[in-house]
Amino acid sequence: MTNQFKNIVIVGRQEDSRVKEPLKLLKQHLSKVGAKLLSADSMDTADLAIAIGGDGTMLYASRLTRETSTPILGINRGRLGFLADVTPDEMITSVDHVLNGNYTKDSRLMLEARLQRSDADADDKVAYALNDVVLQRRETGRMVDFETRIGGLYVNTHSGDGLIVSTPTGSTAYALSCGGPIIQPQLDAVAIIPICPHTLTDRPIVIPANQAIEVSLLERDDTKAEITVDGFSMGNFNPDDKLLISAANMRVTLLHPPGYDFYGILRSKLFWGRDSRKRDK
Amino acid sequence: MTNQFKNIVIVGRQEDSRVKEPLKLLKQHLSKVGAKLLSADSMDTADLAIAIGGDGTMLYASRLTRETSTPILGINRGRLGFLADVTPDEMITSVDHVLNGNYTKDSRLMLEARLQRSDADADDKVAYALNDVVLQRRETGRMVDFETRIGGLYVNTHSGDGLIVSTPTGSTAYALSCGGPIIQPQLDAVAIIPICPHTLTDRPIVIPANQAIEVSLLERDDTKAEITVDGFSMGNFNPDDKLLISAANMRVTLLHPPGYDFYGILRSKLFWGRDSRKRDK
Amino acid sequence: MTNQFKNIVIVGRQEDSRVKEPLKLLKQHLSKVGAKLLSADSMDTADLAIAIGGDGTMLYASRLTRETSTPILGINRGRLGFLADVTPDEMITSVDHVLNGNYTKDSRLMLEARLQRSDADADDKVAYALNDVVLQRRETGRMVDFETRIGGLYVNTHSGDGLIVSTPTGSTAYALSCGGPIIQPQLDAVAIIPICPHTLTDRPIVIPANQAIEVSLLERDDTKAEITVDGFSMGNFNPDDKLLISAANMRVTLLHPPGYDFYGILRSKLFWGRDSRKRDK
Amino acid sequence: MTNQFKNIVIVGRQEDSRVKEPLKLLKQHLSKVGAKLLSADSMDTADLAIAIGGDGTMLYASRLTRETSTPILGINRGRLGFLADVTPDEMITSVDHVLNGNYTKDSRLMLEARLQRSDADADDKVAYALNDVVLQRRETGRMVDFETRIGGLYVNTHSGDGLIVSTPTGSTAYALSCGGPIIQPQLDAVAIIPICPHTLTDRPIVIPANQAIEVSLLERDDTKAEITVDGFSMGNFNPDDKLLISAANMRVTLLHPPGYDFYGILRSKLFWGRDSRKRDK
Repeated sequence: MTNQFKNIVIVGRQEDSRVKEPLKLLKQHLSKVGAKLLSADSMDTADLAIAIGGDGTMLYASRLTRETSTPILGINRGRLGFLADVTPDEMITSVDHVLNGNYTKDSRLMLEARLQRSDADADDKVAYALNDVVLQRRETGRMVDFETRIGGLYVNTHSGDGLIVSTPTGSTAYALSCGGPIIQPQLDAVAIIPICPHTLTDRPIVIPANQAIEVSLLERDDTKAEITVDGFSMGNFNPDDKLLISAANMRVTLLHPPGYDFYGILRSKLFWGRDSRKRDK
Repeated sequence: MTNQFKNIVIVGRQEDSRVKEPLKLLKQHLSKVGAKLLSADSMDTADLAIAIGGDGTMLYASRLTRETSTPILGINRGRLGFLADVTPDEMITSVDHVLNGNYTKDSRLMLEARLQRSDADADDKVAYALNDVVLQRRETGRMVDFETRIGGLYVNTHSGDGLIVSTPTGSTAYALSCGGPIIQPQLDAVAIIPICPHTLTDRPIVIPANQAIEVSLLERDDTKAEITVDGFSMGNFNPDDKLLISAANMRVTLLHPPGYDFYGILRSKLFWGRDSRKRDK
Repeated sequence: MTNQFKNIVIVGRQEDSRVKEPLKLLKQHLSKVGAKLLSADSMDTADLAIAIGGDGTMLYASRLTRETSTPILGINRGRLGFLADVTPDEMITSVDHVLNGNYTKDSRLMLEARLQRSDADADDKVAYALNDVVLQRRETGRMVDFETRIGGLYVNTHSGDGLIVSTPTGSTAYALSCGGPIIQPQLDAVAIIPICPHTLTDRPIVIPANQAIEVSLLERDDTKAEITVDGFSMGNFNPDDKLLISAANMRVTLLHPPGYDFYGILRSKLFWGRDSRKRDK
Repeated sequence: MTNQFKNIVIVGRQEDSRVKEPLKLLKQHLSKVGAKLLSADSMDTADLAIAIGGDGTMLYASRLTRETSTPILGINRGRLGFLADVTPDEMITSVDHVLNGNYTKDSRLMLEARLQRSDADADDKVAYALNDVVLQRRETGRMVDFETRIGGLYVNTHSGDGLIVSTPTGSTAYALSCGGPIIQPQLDAVAIIPICPHTLTDRPIVIPANQAIEVSLLERDDTKAEITVDGFSMGNFNPDDKLLISAANMRVTLLHPPGYDFYGILRSKLFWGRDSRKRDK
């Protein structure tokens, strides 16, 4: 073990039966190799966070490590995850690789979502997304209209169920279900994806990550919308509010043991190469 | 064995190594139970056709039995097929079920494609499709424009790579790759699906099977198109030709052993219920 | 004027400035030609309903006339509608055509949605849709899982934002924004369309209208769903409820003046033939 | 007129009746303001190319100016183009703006496609794309399988009609018809888009422009494929060939008069904001 990762925080939902066992094994192993285990609230002194769980646990770990830029190693609970890419049976070997300095760093773009309330006295509300910022209609069967600007220029008024602003990391999550493209994590880009757009030509747009996006909501009789950031509600979105979305000035650092392969994970998750619909002669 | 299926034709590509063995087993079994095996050119006296192979072999069998309406039982070579829905290990049991009258009938819509050449002296050319009639650009990197009429009414001029006219059976084949819906085989309907349409709002249309479709090709500098019927070329399609597509007056009869489940095949072929992209908490 | 349509109900939102004027003109004209104008609550004695407004007003009129099967003539307020297909400047001429028996009948499929609460004592709740029955997640950023059965057979468990069950009439409304096909109104079919499905192979299915659909909701931590029928909430949908959707035993009858052209309306609404993206040489 | 653009080449198809008139006007105007008109084969001494026509003419101009990096001003013949963004009635004013130094530069990514024949003695064939490199099946109704690698890593084996490798400029052309996203021209990215993929989860991928793509073709009985670069055939593609696609080391420079707005062109070309399908109340 190198000196690099002495102080380690483990993140995981103990109450999940599939997490409990590997979590116990991991703690034993880390103690044996001389690592110091810290609690999650000591993240600022940690050298490494190890997350055990699914991609949801990884999103949670990314929130904990945001301020400190602590790198994260993700252990899955059975199936391969897009973010948690170490399977349980490789856990000890992979952890040893990382502790011995045998890993690759994978720096991921985060988005900052800044909600400016129409009420001038109200403070801005800020949230950070590793996956996506989602604006969606709420408590109404009718469409909502979101107006978008990029770098100050008016883009479009999107009528429909809502809008996703996604990082490359988020491109394989909800955005993919709404017709967005897969974006390779190394590309510094952001995708804007309309959700069930009324206008059939309203298609996903991919832009450079350094261009700021501004979204507002057009007034209608029963207009109600909500902002969700990485699956958590950031609050309601009202017709006079503004949501400013831009690249955050911090990034999430993932560590991968040797053999990490983004395309291999895609193939596994999307069943590529196992198409059973192929016609035989 | 009932008297119903005494005379049987077996269809299959002997040269396919995965067909050879089950084919041999099947012949032995049929002799044992007293069935009479006919050659393919005696199809007009056959009571039953058993096809061993993939969906391609089933399409071939459907051409052989078209005139005689001989029912077809489809045996696959390993994986489940949309049309050949008996797996090799169930072959003998399934065949016995069918011979004993223990089966369901599944009558499938066929399309008739009638090509009227601009040359008035030329005879019409006719072909039949169990899956689809496909019109596609040929030897050109540029778009072609197909004009469609349904029941005599002008529908649209489709610019793009081409057009698919699909039966319910064909809806899970090429049409699905081009954005068409799945159509349940019992619905008497036909789908018209544009291939990579230039106009993004040019979407699949599903119509009653008893309405005739007429397609023509607009003249351009280098306009070249081809008609393909169930994967076989029907010939070139020229700007003054007309292609009339309507429900054929014969149908294909598939026999299924007990337990046939269209939705189960869909789930198996489309990996439904095995989504590995689902986010864990 | 024939004797056929003596008693007429006019439906329209008087408070809509674009409705007020044609509504006044229409009333004057109908009085002049000797028709008797009834109020909406006398619909059971009416021979004809004339709706002035958009497709929303037509949906409203379809609810009013459901029990009595009163035919509906739809007048739009400017732009052509899918259901209200008479433009204001053709209003008087078109109304005269219809009163003189010069029209076509267009009978549209309706769906019956029957909500069976888990509470055995509770009465079933029933609603009718000319467009669609929509099941959607509510107050949650997470996916919901709807299980579907058709004719008693299990089809799939759809994870995502929800599910649309659409008539041919509804196929050009919300269903089209969610990837559904256009279904010609004369086809007796129903489409099931997943909304932003997690499984990318979970595609729209079109089935015969006489097959009953049963939907239930799988239990999760924070599972909440709502049923919307033609845009109006039918109530919440809970994990032990069942929603049975089938063809209603009544249909909506639309009347069209001469020259009605379903494909012409499609071309107009979807900008077919006016593609400005076409590449020039 | 500044000294910057003294020597000008005009590109346009004289035989196009809509080009002839503006072309004559432009020549007269340029002579009047003292510009020197060169023929296309003197492009290496030109300071500016003015293209009159559609986006096809712009692609042609991009080939002429590739070696010399001569900037291009695009005049359209009526409708706005994605690349030729000056309309005829603004032509003279726009040209004067540009000649007076009043313009913005817009540098567009080009792709280099290098075809390595299996025959080791054969020279590599090289072509350049401003829009896209397209690999497609040829003379066969059956699918072809293209294997892709990015940065040396195996990505997928794409079964279907083919594959598009597109620049941001090409993202609004053929790629958009095949389900690709719109990519803002300032993003240094390349999209790989499967054409009618057999595997429904085979979705567009967007990658950094500095990563090289390698495509090969899997052998099948009747495998035939062709490479098209910006709409022109580059030749056949055989099972033992390799196609290497990477960012070219030259770029195309477009000049825009004041007021250029990429999103405005998108809105105009895709009919955004003019949705006539929107439901009225």
